[in-house]
Amino acid sequence: MDELLDDDNIDIIVELMCGIKEAYYVVKKALQKGKAVVTANKALLAYHRYELQELAQNTIFEYEAAVAGGIPIINALRDGLSANHIKSIRGVINGTCNYMLDKMINENIAYDIILKKAQKLGYAEADPTFDVGGYDAAHKLLILASIAYGIDAKPEDILIEGIERISQEDIYFAKEFGFSIKLLGIAKRDGNKIELRVHPVLIRDHQMIAKVDGVMNGISVIGDMVGVTMYYGPGAGGDATASAVVADIIDIARSLNTSAMLGFDKSLQNNELKLKNIDEIESEYYVRMSVVDKPGVLSKITSIFGAFNISIGTFLQTPETESESLASLLFCTHTCKELDIKNALAKIEELDFVRKKPVMIRIEN
Amino acid sequence: MDELLDDDNIDIIVELMCGIKEAYYVVKKALQKGKAVVTANKALLAYHRYELQELAQNTIFEYEAAVAGGIPIINALRDGLSANHIKSIRGVINGTCNYMLDKMINENIAYDIILKKAQKLGYAEADPTFDVGGYDAAHKLLILASIAYGIDAKPEDILIEGIERISQEDIYFAKEFGFSIKLLGIAKRDGNKIELRVHPVLIRDHQMIAKVDGVMNGISVIGDMVGVTMYYGPGAGGDATASAVVADIIDIARSLNTSAMLGFDKSLQNNELKLKNIDEIESEYYVRMSVVDKPGVLSKITSIFGAFNISIGTFLQTPETESESLASLLFCTHTCKELDIKNALAKIEELDFVRKKPVMIRIEN
Repeated sequence: MDELLDDDNIDIIVELMCGIKEAYYVVKKALQKGKAVVTANKALLAYHRYELQELAQNTIFEYEAAVAGGIPIINALRDGLSANHIKSIRGVINGTCNYMLDKMINENIAYDIILKKAQKLGYAEADPTFDVGGYDAAHKLLILASIAYGIDAKPEDILIEGIERISQEDIYFAKEFGFSIKLLGIAKRDGNKIELRVHPVLIRDHQMIAKVDGVMNGISVIGDMVGVTMYYGPGAGGDATASAVVADIIDIARSLNTSAMLGFDKSLQNNELKLKNIDEIESEYYVRMSVVDKPGVLSKITSIFGAFNISIGTFLQTPETESESLASLLFCTHTCKELDIKNALAKIEELDFVRKKPVMIRIEN
Repeated sequence: MDELLDDDNIDIIVELMCGIKEAYYVVKKALQKGKAVVTANKALLAYHRYELQELAQNTIFEYEAAVAGGIPIINALRDGLSANHIKSIRGVINGTCNYMLDKMINENIAYDIILKKAQKLGYAEADPTFDVGGYDAAHKLLILASIAYGIDAKPEDILIEGIERISQEDIYFAKEFGFSIKLLGIAKRDGNKIELRVHPVLIRDHQMIAKVDGVMNGISVIGDMVGVTMYYGPGAGGDATASAVVADIIDIARSLNTSAMLGFDKSLQNNELKLKNIDEIESEYYVRMSVVDKPGVLSKITSIFGAFNISIGTFLQTPETESESLASLLFCTHTCKELDIKNALAKIEELDFVRKKPVMIRIEN
């Protein structure tokens, strides 16, 4: 490898290794030697993108394949939407999770069974944590957020929740309420604060991003000038990755890209945009809890919600099939603060008639 | 205007006039003087793009806003998908028609009424022919087809049908059969032939392009490497256009675009790719006819279909509400040749028990 990096006749290094350490070594050295670099390594970029951008100032560093494989979303964000201030990015950017949720919702298949099928089909790894835990989506989100906002955050800095705890009950009730369930990577600007988070959401069926099906990826970008746009295509697979990698190489050959690697010259972290603390985010929430069906229960629960300024938009109570003495309570809240819902649910969990930890899923409008 | 064009201190001309003649004069002169040009004028490009590309060899000519306003589709086709041979492009690229069809389908509003509403809302012109007749979509399709295939066709060379004859009956039956109706611009490669056509289609509800709603635009591009991708966003309106125009100006300022204006250096017309004659296209077809309800009718009609090698996939007969002695016959054919279906329908129209001209709408799979 070092021989290749030292060879002055080689102008472009295409890095397609898996490990972040090796990739970091190779890419860093290639950039230091002034070679153009193409990579599909999202973990490398999630941790080292600003450092690499510094090194890439006099050469070209392309990474279209790192986010949403075949969709030219880096290109769209950096060039096509360059006239816009980005209000939000919401992406179905992990095909494994989207495939699994799709099957759970539309074919009523349980989580464990569809996970095994996804592994059999090669959509999920033997250790699926990186996908189903939301980490893969988080890496991609951080890259997109850098282009849109110049924000330098690491995966450890942001909220990451996976789909492991999505149950068939929640899918059933989500459908009842007219929602689909998606794992979304979300970047939103609110004044000088940027929200970055990856978690499952309930989302209304009619939204375009809710219509992204199977292993496909879709990214909705709202710009202040253009409004809503969406980009849809295959997120993974050799051909989709190849399509993006080769496009990057063609870009270099055409010397197309003379702008900074991340759009912005440097992280704006020292500028006015700051990462928003997760407790400060505002959302609507879906909450499901299992309670002993007896008088006074609902009033106690709603008084706790009230004490934390949480008002309820929709409420449904149904008997549980397992036991006649238990009932499921479903709430969809109006917009409230994450910290308030967390605190309210912690209090509710302590009540003696509440069985199990209440389930909370954020609603995305 | 000539003063501006003669001013050596002006490097970029942004052409946003409506008339093709004035635009042609200004853009041509600006390019001859080596100025960079940004335009949103699709008619200009539909007729003069190859001539203008010749003139633009030593300068930059950008036109992102000319097709699908806020969607950076030119950018995606020319750069993001540059590694792909394009198999097909299918676009909902006229927001007026999509808005009207959407309302006709989902709110059961008649064509004339929704046209008036579209005019009132500013979605349609006082003379709506350019939009509802499919000409606007055809201009955009020709631009996209040039980038994908380097094909030099004019609007007069291709099939253009509008939405004026879509009736509430056809919408009703389309829904019965599980279809939506869209006006699509279609460019497809079949060997060395390129199909270019604009017409209403019946399309299955689950396809992403069928989900493009209201005045929005959506363009599905299938590449040989990447597979299906789709681009969605606002197709018109001042802000969407501005988003694209400003992005073009930023591109010029960053000197991003050193590739040929249309991706290809010249029209490939002299190369192997030729425009396919419309009679040669193959499609499935929806056919509706009104007949006198008496014995022997169906057998005569099906024998004509058979004589032209047309086989039927779905058939439905229902009494007409207007008159009990009349019946509506609905057919969805398997794939057959356009010339065969045309000839068969001409023969069927001559039968004495057939009332009115049969309706034919192509089905897009």
